[in-house]
Amino acid sequence: MKNGQKRPRIRPPGYRIPPSRPFLETFRANLKETFFPDDPLRQFKGESASRRFILFLQYILPILQWAPSYTFSLFKSDLVAGITIASLAIPQGISYAKLANLPPILGLYSSFVPPLVYAMMGSSKDLAVGTVAVPSLLLASMLGKEVSVLQEPMVYLHLAFTATFFAGVFQFALGVLRLGFIVDFLSHATIVGFMGGAATVVCLQQLKGILGLQHFTTATDLVSVMESVFAQTHQWRWESVVLGFCFLLFLLSTRYISKRRPKYFWVSVAAPLTAVILGSILVYLTHAQNHGIEVIGYLKKGLNPPSLTSLILSPPYMMLAMKTGIITGIIALAEGIAVGRSFAMFKNYHIDGNKEMIAFGMMNMAGSITSCYLTTGPFSRTAVNYNAGCKTAMSNVVLATAMMITLLFLTPLFHYTPLVVLASIIISAMLSLIDYEAAIRLWHVDKIDFCVCIGAYVGVVFGSVEIGLVLAVVISLFRVLLFVARPRTSVLGNIPNSAIYRRVDQYPAAQSVPGVLILQIDAPIYFTNASYLRERISRWIDDEEGRLRAKGDTSSLLYVILDMGAVSSIDTSGISMLEELKKSVERRGLQLVLANPGSEVMKKLDKSKALEKIGQQWIFLTVAEAVGACSFLLHTYKPGAVANGAVADDSNV
Amino acid sequence: MKNGQKRPRIRPPGYRIPPSRPFLETFRANLKETFFPDDPLRQFKGESASRRFILFLQYILPILQWAPSYTFSLFKSDLVAGITIASLAIPQGISYAKLANLPPILGLYSSFVPPLVYAMMGSSKDLAVGTVAVPSLLLASMLGKEVSVLQEPMVYLHLAFTATFFAGVFQFALGVLRLGFIVDFLSHATIVGFMGGAATVVCLQQLKGILGLQHFTTATDLVSVMESVFAQTHQWRWESVVLGFCFLLFLLSTRYISKRRPKYFWVSVAAPLTAVILGSILVYLTHAQNHGIEVIGYLKKGLNPPSLTSLILSPPYMMLAMKTGIITGIIALAEGIAVGRSFAMFKNYHIDGNKEMIAFGMMNMAGSITSCYLTTGPFSRTAVNYNAGCKTAMSNVVLATAMMITLLFLTPLFHYTPLVVLASIIISAMLSLIDYEAAIRLWHVDKIDFCVCIGAYVGVVFGSVEIGLVLAVVISLFRVLLFVARPRTSVLGNIPNSAIYRRVDQYPAAQSVPGVLILQIDAPIYFTNASYLRERISRWIDDEEGRLRAKGDTSSLLYVILDMGAVSSIDTSGISMLEELKKSVERRGLQLVLANPGSEVMKKLDKSKALEKIGQQWIFLTVAEAVGACSFLLHTYKPGAVANGAVADDSNV
Repeated sequence: MKNGQKRPRIRPPGYRIPPSRPFLETFRANLKETFFPDDPLRQFKGESASRRFILFLQYILPILQWAPSYTFSLFKSDLVAGITIASLAIPQGISYAKLANLPPILGLYSSFVPPLVYAMMGSSKDLAVGTVAVPSLLLASMLGKEVSVLQEPMVYLHLAFTATFFAGVFQFALGVLRLGFIVDFLSHATIVGFMGGAATVVCLQQLKGILGLQHFTTATDLVSVMESVFAQTHQWRWESVVLGFCFLLFLLSTRYISKRRPKYFWVSVAAPLTAVILGSILVYLTHAQNHGIEVIGYLKKGLNPPSLTSLILSPPYMMLAMKTGIITGIIALAEGIAVGRSFAMFKNYHIDGNKEMIAFGMMNMAGSITSCYLTTGPFSRTAVNYNAGCKTAMSNVVLATAMMITLLFLTPLFHYTPLVVLASIIISAMLSLIDYEAAIRLWHVDKIDFCVCIGAYVGVVFGSVEIGLVLAVVISLFRVLLFVARPRTSVLGNIPNSAIYRRVDQYPAAQSVPGVLILQIDAPIYFTNASYLRERISRWIDDEEGRLRAKGDTSSLLYVILDMGAVSSIDTSGISMLEELKKSVERRGLQLVLANPGSEVMKKLDKSKALEKIGQQWIFLTVAEAVGACSFLLHTYKPGAVANGAVADDSNV
Repeated sequence: MKNGQKRPRIRPPGYRIPPSRPFLETFRANLKETFFPDDPLRQFKGESASRRFILFLQYILPILQWAPSYTFSLFKSDLVAGITIASLAIPQGISYAKLANLPPILGLYSSFVPPLVYAMMGSSKDLAVGTVAVPSLLLASMLGKEVSVLQEPMVYLHLAFTATFFAGVFQFALGVLRLGFIVDFLSHATIVGFMGGAATVVCLQQLKGILGLQHFTTATDLVSVMESVFAQTHQWRWESVVLGFCFLLFLLSTRYISKRRPKYFWVSVAAPLTAVILGSILVYLTHAQNHGIEVIGYLKKGLNPPSLTSLILSPPYMMLAMKTGIITGIIALAEGIAVGRSFAMFKNYHIDGNKEMIAFGMMNMAGSITSCYLTTGPFSRTAVNYNAGCKTAMSNVVLATAMMITLLFLTPLFHYTPLVVLASIIISAMLSLIDYEAAIRLWHVDKIDFCVCIGAYVGVVFGSVEIGLVLAVVISLFRVLLFVARPRTSVLGNIPNSAIYRRVDQYPAAQSVPGVLILQIDAPIYFTNASYLRERISRWIDDEEGRLRAKGDTSSLLYVILDMGAVSSIDTSGISMLEELKKSVERRGLQLVLANPGSEVMKKLDKSKALEKIGQQWIFLTVAEAVGACSFLLHTYKPGAVANGAVADDSNV
């Protein structure tokens, strides 16, 4: 091909401008691809009306799908798993409620109603529902900024219910509007950094409990917390510190055992409840509550009281609750969806993200009117559920039942539970969230991802949870935008004895073709990068001409081939850029040639008449064909004739 | 290749993982590509120190480059062009200063100092400096919201200087920090819609002048203006209306003549000054100022007074001035850069965007301390300059000299100029900015760009200039993000008798290969699209398996080839996605094959150990080679043996 011996086949069969489809059809297809990529209505096609109704019911209530074939042997597995997670849920629930500055009993309430809702509506078989540390802390920090929990405890409590309600509404709306992809904007690196930072902050907050302090800063950043801790060294209670470290050591060693011997996973699962029981007995026997050890105190017996009338739906507090609800809701959602997806992948079944959001939304709306606060699918609890051998969402029902029994009969048992035990439970849970190994991996693989991760971490630890989150999202988005604003262009060369063209800077074997400069554009051409590309391409041409001059090469540059293979899309700014490029390249006596433009791009070039200006005869299916045609013309005609397009008609075969 | 007759060459010469370069080297290369794509330091290479100093001076003061070779014949051209733009600049300057609610004399001041600064520092040969309508209006609306020009005229004036100062600082900083690409985020469609909307709003504001109203709303939206106009129908002055319509007719007809006969372009150029002179004479003779025709009144003789001490650099007004300065500064910059670039393209010379920003910044900083307000390179004035045959930036010096003479001697002549004439000058200038033809073109070529354009227009006309701008930028960014979140995937087929693979939905000739599903991914794999791609790819596999089942095809699917040609980059979320995909594909008994991954992608896959998991033997240079290898394996070995990788080592030639 390269030496132009035979006339190249310029227009291969099947190459044409794709037929333009009616606007509405394209629009519908694009809409479907954007919002319904999983095609959720596929199963309804070709079914009768009554069957469709049943399918629809099964679609929104997956329990109708699996319940009819539920067996006793499945139940046995779910029973074991459910009891296991309940033993974890009780101490965790109380701890996280304390973290959110809410009455401890709310942590138990929140493990009763939401799991029942999720069991009916959720599509994951492994997810265990419950409260989580980071949104709990975030709730406390966002609400606490405007309402003091000490001065107005009822307003604070009602705001927490209202925020949960709005979180539910927001999650539900995201699911119904098929906007689940918003969750994807929290990248893996963001989540690693953010979770690590949040875990650090949560641990710092536990210093209050461990040191037995009465007063503590409401700020969450490292500097404020350290100031607060070291300003009151005389208030530190050694009894509390000793007890706290003992329990922490106990919890960490059980975790270590479970990590080394996976079949003893139940050791670390049972540890928190064991710690709570041991701690309570210890306090009860030693009357330590009178010696500086704070205890939970009285917990009301009975199931969740209704809280519909507590929702605050009027300004000024409504806006605060809404903002808190949306931010905590999306973070809880991100964790829940990611956890659901990961475990679904282990067992090879599919989870519909948007359907899950609807389930989470319903669960939180139902929770907000039954005295629960924000719940999701926490990683720790779900992993325990999975390890304990759960088979269906029935394990959540078992969890709820266990919680019901606890609420009805067992709450007095927690009267003497020391707060310091709860603090050590939280710390031991949080330490596993600081995933420094992941950060090191990020550094090795992708420096920008590492910056995103560290940005989120530093933002959370030294600023606040919101600042860290915003920082990480902004860096992530900036990265995406920078990629779109500065796409890579590279010079291609021919790999000898093949029709393959590759980057000359990466493939030393690739050889440039005399008289032809082949450039590859690595991104869609959009307004964000159009003027950059125009300048970059002219610089490539300058460089190439300089190189030829420096070599004293007599063959001058005559063709510039743009490999458009990676240009998946183009907008109107991009089209003007190509037209301008064509003009400026021609003014230098060169010919612009496009190779391998996608059908989308071809369609737009045609519609905007840019195709006429560029000349359809200068568009080729592959780089090899474009080079073939250029070489042929270079050998057949005088260079001058080529540049001014004298042979244009001729080559349009 | 397709029938597997001969053993395909799986690893061609030159294909390998690119050598990993040291971090700092890659980082520097990326930084250079991002912020110095035009390589401004190239000319300094290999020069002596004294020569470098001269080159540096010439770099920051382009006048040193062209002045030594400046000739008298060039000056003759520049003199004509300069006088021509001066005749336009006087009425326009006064009109736009009125639009900004500033004393009319400021419009003349602003055409004196800034053109001199630009003549020294600017790199465009055609740009004529002056004030512009849209930033003038924006200045009035942003400052007017917090400071009433009637109650506190001096504070308002000083705020305008301060805003100009901050605009200059911001523009200068953008240029020095090489952040010029921020301007690119205003797409063509955004600018069409925004400019059209702003022109509509400016025209609406002129109803005050045309109708001779004393009171007028400070809001700029259509509804408020219409309410204000029709609430005071009894105040309409017929004398003003008649005069206004006569002059508007005159201006529009001269514009029409110039448009039909380009060589009479001077007719429309001279028209505004003619209208001002005619109007002033008419008022002077008829004493119309006593019959409801408002006039400019007394203009102070003399050059720009210094205004350094007027800058307000303390809260609370400083923040307002800063905000106003940044927003008006970026809009002025976008217009100036775009205009400079367009005319540079006509004459085939190069403009350095970042250098231009520095020049604009210096010009506005100098202006702000010499009683000027925001200036840039307006399209209208630059086009007149170009048509009048300007050769260098010297035409701006001529403009400044003409303005100096006007300020020193001619200001009393404008005493009787009626405001209604200024209103008709603004309207006739604005009508050409409402580019409805461009909007129609956008509709035909790109529906989303059309939405962006209409969004900006509606936002400006019914909301405010700021709302329109924010709306347009948000829609534009959302479009880019949506593209990154929902990349296209498509099934490829072989074009018979070639090694070319193209989309089967666009090329009817493309044929699928038995047992192999070839998917093309059209975007970099980032956190924004990783989970979408995972789900979309499994749906493609579902679809293909369903299709085979429906056809009763005995040959089942065994290979999934991903064409990664357009995947220019990948981040850590993308890498995990590929690993998970590999696992889930394997669980279905299929083999994942990658074709044509870029060197960037290969490097990251290697560093993250994902390459080992995917298997280097399953990565090919082209789709054709991947298909060749798969077909060969399909024919040689039993399918079962292939799926579990029994032949993996063997194929690694």
